[in-house]
Amino acid sequence: MIRGFKMKLYEGQEKEYEYRHNQLWPEMIDMIHEYGGKNYTIFLDKETLNLFGYIEIEDEELWSQGADTAINRKWWDYMADIMETNPDNSPVAIDLKTVFHLD
Amino acid sequence: MIRGFKMKLYEGQEKEYEYRHNQLWPEMIDMIHEYGGKNYTIFLDKETLNLFGYIEIEDEELWSQGADTAINRKWWDYMADIMETNPDNSPVAIDLKTVFHLD
Repeated sequence: MIRGFKMKLYEGQEKEYEYRHNQLWPEMIDMIHEYGGKNYTIFLDKETLNLFGYIEIEDEELWSQGADTAINRKWWDYMADIMETNPDNSPVAIDLKTVFHLD
Repeated sequence: MIRGFKMKLYEGQEKEYEYRHNQLWPEMIDMIHEYGGKNYTIFLDKETLNLFGYIEIEDEELWSQGADTAINRKWWDYMADIMETNPDNSPVAIDLKTVFHLD
């Protein structure tokens, strides 16, 4: 199953966002894979500072459980200073509607 | 190689865009595959009417040649009434920067 979503970066944080993701913690990589995520790409729209996420997941329920892991919450806390977040430090993420797919 | 890009839909054309893509011409499907495109997904951001495209391509040069085929130009002409286009009817498409990828 494919999910697309958008998030929002704070101004001036483009390089920092990319730097942190280039050094994504091994425990976060493991979490993503263990909870059924793969082929995960994040794009930046430089005009608007929107981040566009694309991920392929095995199962919605399994994937949502990954959000509740200690390592994921630690990652959200770490990222909260450079992007729009909710009160629990999760990123403000808006699901996009899939309107076309071709294998 | 992965490409992400955004396009813009005209207001009120959400259903029509999806309808036309659900019935994508077989010749267009063949063109996409022949010119090295696969795993192609388009998402709609209902808030902004931006369309986010995600596609995996074999080769930039090969893929760009597909744009010049008669079938692709016919598709662009067909779609030009419901989305922002350039003078040649190609969609206004802005490339997004890949800032993270995990297999």
